[in-house]
Amino acid sequence: MTTHSIDQPIPAHPIAVVILAAGKGTRMKSDLHKVLHPIAGRPMLLHLVASAAALQPAKTVVVTGAGREQVEAAVAPLGIATALQAEQLGTGHAVAQAREALAGFEGDVLILYGDVPLVTTTTMQRMIDRLHAEDTPAVVVLGFRPTEPGAYGRVIADAAGRMDRIVEYKDASEAERAVTLCNSGLMAVHSTDLFSLLDRLGNDNAAGEYYLTDIVELAAVAGRSSAVIETGADEVAGVNSRGELASVEGAWQATRRAQAMVDGATLIAPDTVWFSHDTQLGRDVVIEPNVVFGPGTRVADGATIHAFSHVEGASVGKGANVGPFARLRPGAELHADAKVGNFVEVKKAIIGEGAKVSHLTYIGDADIGAGANIGAGTITCNYDGYFKYRTVIGEGAFIGSNSALVAPVTIGAGAIVAAGSVVTQDVETDALALVRPPQVAKPGWAKRFREKMLARKAVK
Amino acid sequence: MTTHSIDQPIPAHPIAVVILAAGKGTRMKSDLHKVLHPIAGRPMLLHLVASAAALQPAKTVVVTGAGREQVEAAVAPLGIATALQAEQLGTGHAVAQAREALAGFEGDVLILYGDVPLVTTTTMQRMIDRLHAEDTPAVVVLGFRPTEPGAYGRVIADAAGRMDRIVEYKDASEAERAVTLCNSGLMAVHSTDLFSLLDRLGNDNAAGEYYLTDIVELAAVAGRSSAVIETGADEVAGVNSRGELASVEGAWQATRRAQAMVDGATLIAPDTVWFSHDTQLGRDVVIEPNVVFGPGTRVADGATIHAFSHVEGASVGKGANVGPFARLRPGAELHADAKVGNFVEVKKAIIGEGAKVSHLTYIGDADIGAGANIGAGTITCNYDGYFKYRTVIGEGAFIGSNSALVAPVTIGAGAIVAAGSVVTQDVETDALALVRPPQVAKPGWAKRFREKMLARKAVK
Amino acid sequence: MTTHSIDQPIPAHPIAVVILAAGKGTRMKSDLHKVLHPIAGRPMLLHLVASAAALQPAKTVVVTGAGREQVEAAVAPLGIATALQAEQLGTGHAVAQAREALAGFEGDVLILYGDVPLVTTTTMQRMIDRLHAEDTPAVVVLGFRPTEPGAYGRVIADAAGRMDRIVEYKDASEAERAVTLCNSGLMAVHSTDLFSLLDRLGNDNAAGEYYLTDIVELAAVAGRSSAVIETGADEVAGVNSRGELASVEGAWQATRRAQAMVDGATLIAPDTVWFSHDTQLGRDVVIEPNVVFGPGTRVADGATIHAFSHVEGASVGKGANVGPFARLRPGAELHADAKVGNFVEVKKAIIGEGAKVSHLTYIGDADIGAGANIGAGTITCNYDGYFKYRTVIGEGAFIGSNSALVAPVTIGAGAIVAAGSVVTQDVETDALALVRPPQVAKPGWAKRFREKMLARKAVK
Repeated sequence: MTTHSIDQPIPAHPIAVVILAAGKGTRMKSDLHKVLHPIAGRPMLLHLVASAAALQPAKTVVVTGAGREQVEAAVAPLGIATALQAEQLGTGHAVAQAREALAGFEGDVLILYGDVPLVTTTTMQRMIDRLHAEDTPAVVVLGFRPTEPGAYGRVIADAAGRMDRIVEYKDASEAERAVTLCNSGLMAVHSTDLFSLLDRLGNDNAAGEYYLTDIVELAAVAGRSSAVIETGADEVAGVNSRGELASVEGAWQATRRAQAMVDGATLIAPDTVWFSHDTQLGRDVVIEPNVVFGPGTRVADGATIHAFSHVEGASVGKGANVGPFARLRPGAELHADAKVGNFVEVKKAIIGEGAKVSHLTYIGDADIGAGANIGAGTITCNYDGYFKYRTVIGEGAFIGSNSALVAPVTIGAGAIVAAGSVVTQDVETDALALVRPPQVAKPGWAKRFREKMLARKAVK
Repeated sequence: MTTHSIDQPIPAHPIAVVILAAGKGTRMKSDLHKVLHPIAGRPMLLHLVASAAALQPAKTVVVTGAGREQVEAAVAPLGIATALQAEQLGTGHAVAQAREALAGFEGDVLILYGDVPLVTTTTMQRMIDRLHAEDTPAVVVLGFRPTEPGAYGRVIADAAGRMDRIVEYKDASEAERAVTLCNSGLMAVHSTDLFSLLDRLGNDNAAGEYYLTDIVELAAVAGRSSAVIETGADEVAGVNSRGELASVEGAWQATRRAQAMVDGATLIAPDTVWFSHDTQLGRDVVIEPNVVFGPGTRVADGATIHAFSHVEGASVGKGANVGPFARLRPGAELHADAKVGNFVEVKKAIIGEGAKVSHLTYIGDADIGAGANIGAGTITCNYDGYFKYRTVIGEGAFIGSNSALVAPVTIGAGAIVAAGSVVTQDVETDALALVRPPQVAKPGWAKRFREKMLARKAVK
Repeated sequence: MTTHSIDQPIPAHPIAVVILAAGKGTRMKSDLHKVLHPIAGRPMLLHLVASAAALQPAKTVVVTGAGREQVEAAVAPLGIATALQAEQLGTGHAVAQAREALAGFEGDVLILYGDVPLVTTTTMQRMIDRLHAEDTPAVVVLGFRPTEPGAYGRVIADAAGRMDRIVEYKDASEAERAVTLCNSGLMAVHSTDLFSLLDRLGNDNAAGEYYLTDIVELAAVAGRSSAVIETGADEVAGVNSRGELASVEGAWQATRRAQAMVDGATLIAPDTVWFSHDTQLGRDVVIEPNVVFGPGTRVADGATIHAFSHVEGASVGKGANVGPFARLRPGAELHADAKVGNFVEVKKAIIGEGAKVSHLTYIGDADIGAGANIGAGTITCNYDGYFKYRTVIGEGAFIGSNSALVAPVTIGAGAIVAAGSVVTQDVETDALALVRPPQVAKPGWAKRFREKMLARKAVK
């Protein structure tokens, strides 16, 4: 994710990304580290990593603290470095821990927060670009205007974003408190400036902490300017509680739903559709109310996902119909015009073009040929408690209702399986398979049974 | 829809309705014509046609353009005329295309927009009535007050709705821009005035188009007054994108939900209930969270629709219970106190009074007698790949779980089908039907199998 | 509910609670009495009774009128007294009807309204406490500030809550109408004062009714002060229509959802989760979108309730997985790490530790041992139309797909049931049970059938 692809332009300036993730997140009341709680099915931290990756950073460093093992395990597979902040001595101290991991790097450093997950690549790029504007600020701060500025630090700057200073709420004058532009804490600083400024940071304050924000003032003392760029409050929303997690999830979903509609999908009830971070939708896709997407799903043009469907790791072909009440699990692959109906679960299975699996069926580890019709209540028996086996159903085959297909088994093209059969042997092309003992009738039995039972009930 | 019923009073004035539907709707990014996108399960255009039909118009004309075939196909079955606007030369030009279709008609013309679908019959009638008020305006315009008046044309009028003029935003003075009453574009004009004014329309403007709005000024030039009546902004919301489609759907649903509650239904979570344009609910109906109605449903007094149900084309009798997780499809007819439970699908079937279909069942093309009990996992096998067949189950019959009833088949009243049976022959009244081969036991087999499989797993 | 527990401190002052529930609620358009319409699955009246019970009242009296039988039936099992208001002569008259039921009681009387259900124990206690403040008011009124004060009576009081008077909107001066503190109608009054003041109440007003509010003025005439305490408008929201019922339900749910998140549960989409009044959630519980809880559910730490699940009267163990599309009914007891998957219904059944019931299954009246695996489409046949019977499945047993287990029946530990079996006899530990007739093949039959059917279709 952090290596340069030969197809991508090399960024104008070398970039390193530092993501602070040392905070415990006690208000989450969770055994899971705060930055690993998911938004749209992906851990918050990995949203940031993905957005930053588009800048092709030379280096990404995650600063860890409490719960470091969880965070390390999450980023290790991506080849991302971590740096330990053993003691919680403030944000400035946290960034300073990345010094070793950034040894040898010279370029722009973007400082992000693992619990502020929605910052976009565009905004990150704007921060970097501002660092290289004509007035060459030492520090670029990301500002925003919250609905309730409350106790946020105020950014005192002119209209061009040339920043005078950041003033903490408690130190602010009445006039300064009236300023609505607030400090998000995110920054871009050249590496040389950054570590030089961090070296000068003091902790002479009530909490005895090293505050990253103070580098703005230290830059001014050194005769260097700082700048602010502004973004929307939603983008820098932080997550410190499950309530805020839900808010950020909601904001992410709202943005995604709006984009889906702009791109040509109909969402009858947008607020009831829950996307995953990587859901792909074609044009003229219709999504009815109450649909949940898990990761890894692609829906082609003209397909309809009916109400109450749960779709994860699936590929839905052109014009296919899913639901209502369908569950597509990873590896479900519906070809064009296939139909998966109500109370049907599909897992690791191909549903061929125009094939129909309409009701109350479990299809797992199977290949279903084009135009096949799978009757209600069909079960592919794919598991013996130890291994999984495959069911193959040929084109145009017809599986009668309430059948059990005991895998491994192959049903030939055009074959018919009679209703209620337990199929354990392969069925030839165009053959009928039948597992059906004779029906026995016991006249009057039900009447006698009823009388006996009613008598027993009367006694009870 | 547009013919006069002998039971309805003949309208005081002959009315014709012109609906403009020539716009392509490119922002929808759809192969479906914009005015055919549905709201509450009915194409937008047909909402307007239905609302206008209550005025008993002598004539309804839909002006088509791009995608005319789709629009023509949608209105042809209703006996509604269409008129082609071959070139997109503005709204005035569009209305002028209806001249031929209205040949011979003399009366009031109501001009509507196919993408402004929520205008009510009441508002349409008010527009017509205003045309016949004492001051006999030549043109009646429908005004509204949007939250953000933005670039809408402002309606300059007195408190009685006597209109001075409509001023386009770009031509408006500061004082005029402060006016909050805006022009929706909808109009009522007498046919003689309409075509006389349209004849005088020019296209001397930047776009070179003929604007319908300009007839207000032309009327003034001719010494005739115009008037405005006002309605709510929601009612004249237009649809130019999928986002606006979703907004209008939401507005329609909100109105419908509120009305359902006023009429005596309990909606525990109104925002999660999605009605169809024609859903009918009785008194003391309870609708739990997350219920979706498709077209053609009627729910009688005291019935409960439990959570996660999808109900379309169905009739639900008094005190009946549906769901949770039930799917009623067209032709499902539940008599009083019937029960259709979880993971049950019912299609073209009568469920008799007090009969129970509680779990994991497919009932299609069937008649189930009063008081019958259909066990879990029952499937009516109604389809052989070519034709559909009927299952008849008598009163008080008991179908054991996991049975397959292979239609055509009749189960007599009071009969019992043993669990797991595949029934292919009719069962007599009060008889027991049994299809059950002997159970075979292989002692110790499972243990040996387990050992073998574990060994195989160890190797893998 | 109203008796003192030996474990609870005796309240400082004896308290009686009077709940007015005589109003018909015609706007509800319901056969069910207004105060019995449920919020979060519990009748409104019982929400109040439960909140008041925490004050350990010596006596609770519900004043009934129209529909008294329904109300009496609802409170009788709780040992709560009722008093009949035969004629509707106003709120003062209603409270006076409780005199007999409160005979012999001396202490504080809290006056509540059956259709104002969300008042909390804390607020009730604050009202009582205010009665005993230094200025010893005769009457304590509960005030609130609605978004639209409209026609509510205004509370004229100083900042310390010392009340001058309540002025009805119609009698209020312009300055008084500008007051935003309104009268909710709820009161606390010492019993001696209450009945003494009620004796002096007149009905010399347009409606000829006895208004409870007038006791404030009568107290002043008698030289006694009154006081107001304030609470949020949501807490005193009243229910007079189904729309208001839905609003109050929504307010209750919003509060509950927020609390669930504060307590350490993740709600991905809080607005789509519907709690019951008594739902209990552990820490690190994850609730996906669209989950409905019925009464009596407890979810232990680390369990996940997936999307589209309906859970009622169930116990979900640590780390257990439920859904998507699962239905847990009363008596479902999932032990740690158990799994209940899609389209599965569980009722009165234990699912042992780590046992899996993953797909399309009905488990009713059963004990499933730890680690057992229940295949897709399994049905426990627990009912013969008259009695219910139990299915016992041993630890580590494996039930093949599409099996029917005809209860009473026991499957031994480690046993295997072959797919598609109808099991009517007990299966020994480690044995294989097999009910499987031979599979018959008819080569070419399907082809001939197809040709015949296509020919028949061509004729039709």
